[in-house]
Amino acid sequence: MADAPATVYLIGSGPGDPELLTVKAKRLLSTADVVLHDKLPGPEILEEIPEDKREDVGKRADGEWTPQEYTNRRLVELAEAGQTVIRLKGGDPFVFGRGGEEMEHLAANDIPFEVVPGITSATAAPGVAGIPLTHRDHVSSVSFVTGHEDPTKDESAVDWEALADTGGTLVVLMGVGKLPLYTQALRDAGVAPKTPVALVERATWAEMTVATGTLDSIVEVRDEVGIEPPAITVIGDVAATREAVVDFLLNRSDDEPHQGGGEP
Amino acid sequence: MADAPATVYLIGSGPGDPELLTVKAKRLLSTADVVLHDKLPGPEILEEIPEDKREDVGKRADGEWTPQEYTNRRLVELAEAGQTVIRLKGGDPFVFGRGGEEMEHLAANDIPFEVVPGITSATAAPGVAGIPLTHRDHVSSVSFVTGHEDPTKDESAVDWEALADTGGTLVVLMGVGKLPLYTQALRDAGVAPKTPVALVERATWAEMTVATGTLDSIVEVRDEVGIEPPAITVIGDVAATREAVVDFLLNRSDDEPHQGGGEP
Ligand SMILES: C[S@@+](CC[C@H](N)C(=O)[O-])C[C@H]1O[C@@H](n2cnc3c(N)ncnc32)[C@H](O)[C@@H]1O
Ligand SMILES: C[S@@+](CC[C@H](N)C(=O)[O-])C[C@H]1O[C@@H](n2cnc3c(N)ncnc32)[C@H](O)[C@@H]1O
Repeated sequence: MADAPATVYLIGSGPGDPELLTVKAKRLLSTADVVLHDKLPGPEILEEIPEDKREDVGKRADGEWTPQEYTNRRLVELAEAGQTVIRLKGGDPFVFGRGGEEMEHLAANDIPFEVVPGITSATAAPGVAGIPLTHRDHVSSVSFVTGHEDPTKDESAVDWEALADTGGTLVVLMGVGKLPLYTQALRDAGVAPKTPVALVERATWAEMTVATGTLDSIVEVRDEVGIEPPAITVIGDVAATREAVVDFLLNRSDDEPHQGGGEP
Repeated sequence: MADAPATVYLIGSGPGDPELLTVKAKRLLSTADVVLHDKLPGPEILEEIPEDKREDVGKRADGEWTPQEYTNRRLVELAEAGQTVIRLKGGDPFVFGRGGEEMEHLAANDIPFEVVPGITSATAAPGVAGIPLTHRDHVSSVSFVTGHEDPTKDESAVDWEALADTGGTLVVLMGVGKLPLYTQALRDAGVAPKTPVALVERATWAEMTVATGTLDSIVEVRDEVGIEPPAITVIGDVAATREAVVDFLLNRSDDEPHQGGGEP
């Protein structure tokens, strides 16, 4: 009879600052046999993991992505061989992270696993930029949405009109490239052109950049500042809070006020 | 001339498991002079803070809540007296946490501050229950919403119809008491009665309870299991994932599969 399989840990690494790892993630990272990861956890966290324990299942040398099926299979294979495996995901494993599919695959193959939540970039990026996602008086919901789909395509699964109608804060992930398309979709849905918008690139990484504008101006701001993925887009009145507080905001350095890379 | 004020740290404590504190929160908690908190961080985290450093600004002895104005004033007063202060919030400070108001008050009073994000219960509770918030094939958004408002009131700021129309996962905070009202509002908005729903009470606390049902049955389930605040409601197809994986899910104990308190 084969030995019982080892446990797989689906771990969220948070937005990138190694100090925003959870105590639990840090403990497990120091004891696991193998860590399967892509680039999203960020350079600082990945550098802390011994090279001989790391397996990159992100972009391959030929520029293609490792298929999800390979990652699923590899997790099962390692666990069945008795290796304690960590699947390390940027942010939280279950927020646009495909952690759900991996979890289902593990269960279907009788592999025990544990979920270790992480801080999603969708909350961390606005947070360290001085932008609250909700406000007692005028924001009773916040929606996270993928900006990856083309909103002009008929089969787009994102209903920007419904999202606009919620009246809540919108946080777009994977939304740098298609910014012109979905800001237009939101204007078409009646969102005011002067609605504040912020872009937060590489939040909590050493070289974080914040840029702010309005629904009308943000595409130009993106191009001027040179915002690139990974970045978060925050749309809503709360995005204007940054301006009111930034002079006293000490993130992420404790010593000097943060210099936003591109205040317009 | 008065000395420069000390720094205030607005820290999210995560959902309650002390191991889900960030490394940074843990470091700061061990060095701060005073920690202002309410009950939401949960007993295990609060017990780790020395009694003589803790100030409870939550519910008072007379059952009333400490007004937000008192907390704001107290933060400024302590910082001006040169005390390093932590404002410790359950989950993330900026997700239905009033952290935004505190931050604005600090900036208006020239007090330097730093934001230390935490894992919001809105992602952690579904996560440890085996429920992914998004799914590549059929969920492109997730919305966090307060269940505290009465959806039958005209002045309700929550547009349940727009939220239903997004087609994404809904996560309701502060939504135990008004569960009958907003599940009805969602059915009225056309959400299928058989849509899976999960309740996760005290997620990651020692005595976490999970209960599952459908939009139609969940009020009955809540009453049978005896779900009480603090709890999260997850509404959407993803809530059914738990059933498919729970036999192999080791949360939060590493030793034995989690016993959900109320699988119907
Ligand atoms: C495939 S999604 C994964 C999200 C991840 N699971 C999470 O919870 O943060 C990748 C997107 O996350 C966002 N992202 C991740 N880390 C980020 C960071 N440090 N700063 C800004 N955005 C980030 C970007 O929008 C990026 O395109
Ligand atoms: C005032 S809100 C604060 C939310 C907090 N800032 C966060 O990010 O989790 C309080 C609500 O958070 C939710 N909550 C907080 N901690 C929880 C936990 N450990 N398990 C389930 N729900 C929790 C409940 O819905 C509760 O009513």
